Amino acid sequence: MPKLRIIPLGGLEQIGMNITAFEYADSIVVVDCGLAFPEDDMLGVDLVIPDVTYLKENIAKVKGFFITHGHEDHIGAIPYVLRDVNVPIYATRLTMGLIEHKLTEHQMMDSTRRKVVSFGQSINAGDFRVEFIKTNHSIVDAAALAIYSPAGCVVHTGDFKVDYTPIYGDAIDLQRFAEIGKKGVLALLADSTNAERPGFTPSEKTLGPTFDALFTEHKNHRIFVATFASNVDRVQQIINTAYKFGRKVSVEGRSMVNIIDCAQKLECISIPENTLVEYDALNNVPPEKQVIITTGSQGESMAALSRMAAGTHRKFAIGPGDTVIFSSHPIPGNEKPITKIINQLLQKGAEVIFQDVHVSGHACQEEIKLIYSLLQPRYAVPVHGEYKHRMAQAKIAQDLGIPKERTIILGSGDILELNVNSAEVVGKVPVGGILVDGLGVGDVGNVVLRDRQHLAEDGIMVIVMGIESGSGELIAGPDIVSRGFVYVKESDELLEEVRLLALETVEGCLEKGGADWSRIKTALKDTVGDFIWKKTKRRPMILPIIEEV
Amino acid sequence: MPKLRIIPLGGLEQIGMNITAFEYADSIVVVDCGLAFPEDDMLGVDLVIPDVTYLKENIAKVKGFFITHGHEDHIGAIPYVLRDVNVPIYATRLTMGLIEHKLTEHQMMDSTRRKVVSFGQSINAGDFRVEFIKTNHSIVDAAALAIYSPAGCVVHTGDFKVDYTPIYGDAIDLQRFAEIGKKGVLALLADSTNAERPGFTPSEKTLGPTFDALFTEHKNHRIFVATFASNVDRVQQIINTAYKFGRKVSVEGRSMVNIIDCAQKLECISIPENTLVEYDALNNVPPEKQVIITTGSQGESMAALSRMAAGTHRKFAIGPGDTVIFSSHPIPGNEKPITKIINQLLQKGAEVIFQDVHVSGHACQEEIKLIYSLLQPRYAVPVHGEYKHRMAQAKIAQDLGIPKERTIILGSGDILELNVNSAEVVGKVPVGGILVDGLGVGDVGNVVLRDRQHLAEDGIMVIVMGIESGSGELIAGPDIVSRGFVYVKESDELLEEVRLLALETVEGCLEKGGADWSRIKTALKDTVGDFIWKKTKRRPMILPIIEEV
Repeated sequence: MPKLRIIPLGGLEQIGMNITAFEYADSIVVVDCGLAFPEDDMLGVDLVIPDVTYLKENIAKVKGFFITHGHEDHIGAIPYVLRDVNVPIYATRLTMGLIEHKLTEHQMMDSTRRKVVSFGQSINAGDFRVEFIKTNHSIVDAAALAIYSPAGCVVHTGDFKVDYTPIYGDAIDLQRFAEIGKKGVLALLADSTNAERPGFTPSEKTLGPTFDALFTEHKNHRIFVATFASNVDRVQQIINTAYKFGRKVSVEGRSMVNIIDCAQKLECISIPENTLVEYDALNNVPPEKQVIITTGSQGESMAALSRMAAGTHRKFAIGPGDTVIFSSHPIPGNEKPITKIINQLLQKGAEVIFQDVHVSGHACQEEIKLIYSLLQPRYAVPVHGEYKHRMAQAKIAQDLGIPKERTIILGSGDILELNVNSAEVVGKVPVGGILVDGLGVGDVGNVVLRDRQHLAEDGIMVIVMGIESGSGELIAGPDIVSRGFVYVKESDELLEEVRLLALETVEGCLEKGGADWSRIKTALKDTVGDFIWKKTKRRPMILPIIEEV
Repeated sequence: MPKLRIIPLGGLEQIGMNITAFEYADSIVVVDCGLAFPEDDMLGVDLVIPDVTYLKENIAKVKGFFITHGHEDHIGAIPYVLRDVNVPIYATRLTMGLIEHKLTEHQMMDSTRRKVVSFGQSINAGDFRVEFIKTNHSIVDAAALAIYSPAGCVVHTGDFKVDYTPIYGDAIDLQRFAEIGKKGVLALLADSTNAERPGFTPSEKTLGPTFDALFTEHKNHRIFVATFASNVDRVQQIINTAYKFGRKVSVEGRSMVNIIDCAQKLECISIPENTLVEYDALNNVPPEKQVIITTGSQGESMAALSRMAAGTHRKFAIGPGDTVIFSSHPIPGNEKPITKIINQLLQKGAEVIFQDVHVSGHACQEEIKLIYSLLQPRYAVPVHGEYKHRMAQAKIAQDLGIPKERTIILGSGDILELNVNSAEVVGKVPVGGILVDGLGVGDVGNVVLRDRQHLAEDGIMVIVMGIESGSGELIAGPDIVSRGFVYVKESDELLEEVRLLALETVEGCLEKGGADWSRIKTALKDTVGDFIWKKTKRRPMILPIIEEV
């Protein structure tokens, strides 16, 4: 009985990096290729991409990337990974539009094979066939994938919710899920994000009346709405309400402008004529007839909204007569910066609405049960969520009658080998996050991060001196230069004490004979480090530099 | 008509630093003296204390500190502020116990005048009289203060809730609030923390049955309970339940041990004999008869719980058969580290309970209405909360019939001058947060923080060279040393390029004549900085050092 392998290459411990390999004999297909945003201790790091050593080592087998939807945690690593694993990309229309925007920025359009796939369409890829199935999510054109192999059919939901009344396009194709389920599903890899939440996620459409009510209540105010750039349906509804109330809409924030532009080209959004205007055209519109849709709903410090709240935005000054609506929910970790912005806006006199103007894009417990019931998979392999979320989905699967030994929580890199008779983890491939800082990919590692952490905590103290190479005599310095340590007059005295101590230490070493630079450096680190700790209870990085003259 | 002045010296923009001055003629009394914990951008800073320049400049007037309760944001700055403003401290019993613990650590017991005050007792302080009134809060012995002056009576609630069935001591003294209200209250300064939440905060006592139920359900498990060290009543209830189930209790975490010790000495907690045991004594107790109460419920990286979750605690290894209960709620900003710990514990096989095992210590809307109705103040001056919370309380006051112009939102340092006829902000005193890093108070300022931020982002590159003082010739270097920048082989090449560029730059400067060190340094910063930015899109701090030989 042939076996299929499922290998998560990221995105389990490292939330965000969604990328999963499916391997059968000489074929590998990869679902998604996302990035993660850096953790708090990854100082100076811009983003994190998955280590795809396993794909590189098996490049001959890799048939393509199959992308479920256009969020950064599913497409963001494509331009980086493709440099080493240049295989075709398959995605639906808007997803491909957003991928192409990235490829253009990285000047990789010419070198990348791409195919736009329709819902219901299947792609043959070696021993696999991959079918794209319509789902709903907080971005248009999201797909689930049915991955057929000689070992059986595996369904990967991507990120999904069940929306019977979506804004754009069709509802999730539940009939197709049922058909596939009827034929037999080996394993289901389903979105766990909301697996702890009971009930059913409300339809995106429920927000239409919410916006109508808010626009009615604040009819004398200029209205700002902050939301996720990629939520085209949300933007559509804001525009619909704005149009209904005779308001002009302007858009702020680069990513918001990009995505609306892309959605317009692909006709995923329909904007009534003369509704969307450039900033300059707002001058002729009274404030109570303006709506500004903006990025920054997560408190991102560089986004348009945080600059407006701080009073440093070059176009918009917020004040009394303004209403700011957060059409979003804080992503864990962003609570504090968001609250800061809310307080700043209130202090400027604006009204701020920050509750109940958002619905999730992820399935709650009842939706998860629905998908399980339609597909009736033999194995449950929860994906997309922290460990506790995946545990919660495993619990749901068990409640639905899937035996505990057939609910499987994988770790990153685990090689799950399965067929209808058995499923077990048979090994591990190398995985991990590769840090991207500026143009550098992978050149910031643990040593650099540790140094940055050290520098961030207590700064640096450089001790420089010149030693004559022949005689081994100290002929200049030691001089002390510090940064990020202290900066007051009293410190001059401290630095002078350090200088004398360093002088004594170096001369002591030199007298004992031999010009062993590394011994001098170690001695300096020890004596000066101890001295400063005693005096200040701080440990700046001590960096002795000897110039041989 | 004489006027009273109310001056918040911290704790409004800078959440946490609760300290408010009340001034009448030649008398000043100060309520609380708290610290704030550093914001994310205050790298390496341990804590933040208020700038009390105003008190120092008016030291002859200052009669004393009147402390409402023993939380860090109300007592934490005392050892620092007392160095400059050494006036008596008045507080209730447990509050004073915790203050004395701090004073002992700072060796300031002998130099500090202290008086333990009972509930109902008044202290005369210049033109003021200050009465301590029983309230309830998440720490024992919390007090509200009625501050009587010739201009009228002002009530400061401190942090409070209304608990009709407290664990230790009496319920809040509502009768006294009513009496004071009947006589006339000029202004109410009330806790705003939960002013956005409808309803009534549940009694601490409601958690007793919760613990009983959890202990019943997990009767075969070793049980860990993480909670706030200072919540003595919570610890009391955990111990009560443990005793009921015949379990032994051990306590982990320094602050937890300290506070329980202090509470035991003051008899604020009552522990059945042979229930509290040292760690070593647990060896003879089967796991299912153990309870470990621990610090770290906020995900603090150095606390006992996070070390247990990471598997680095030297006493306890968590695994299947353990249940960990979070008897706490995430303080905003701590969500991510807490979730990380929960995931780690689950991965180790423990059961984790992290919802509905906590009640707040702060009054919700109905309690706030109750206090307003009992006191019927002329002015509402919401305190203790972010701007949005204080706005929410102002709204409540207005709903209760206090005219909008008599609900006052102060900023830090605002001098509010008021009597029964008028209330207005007449000026501002200097305020701000003073950063404490190690032993240094105030020696880390904006320049140092900016440097630390810069170092944290991209590290540092030191360029050292020796120049002969007489001839102005370059005789050693330039040598390049970097930390926190890059750390891979390719970087050697980059550093060599930087070295050559630096050499060229320095020689260029020297040739143009004159040994102007500062010009050379500026030129190096510019050329090397630009070069590295172009090559890497990073901006390490460039630190040129010239050794005159």
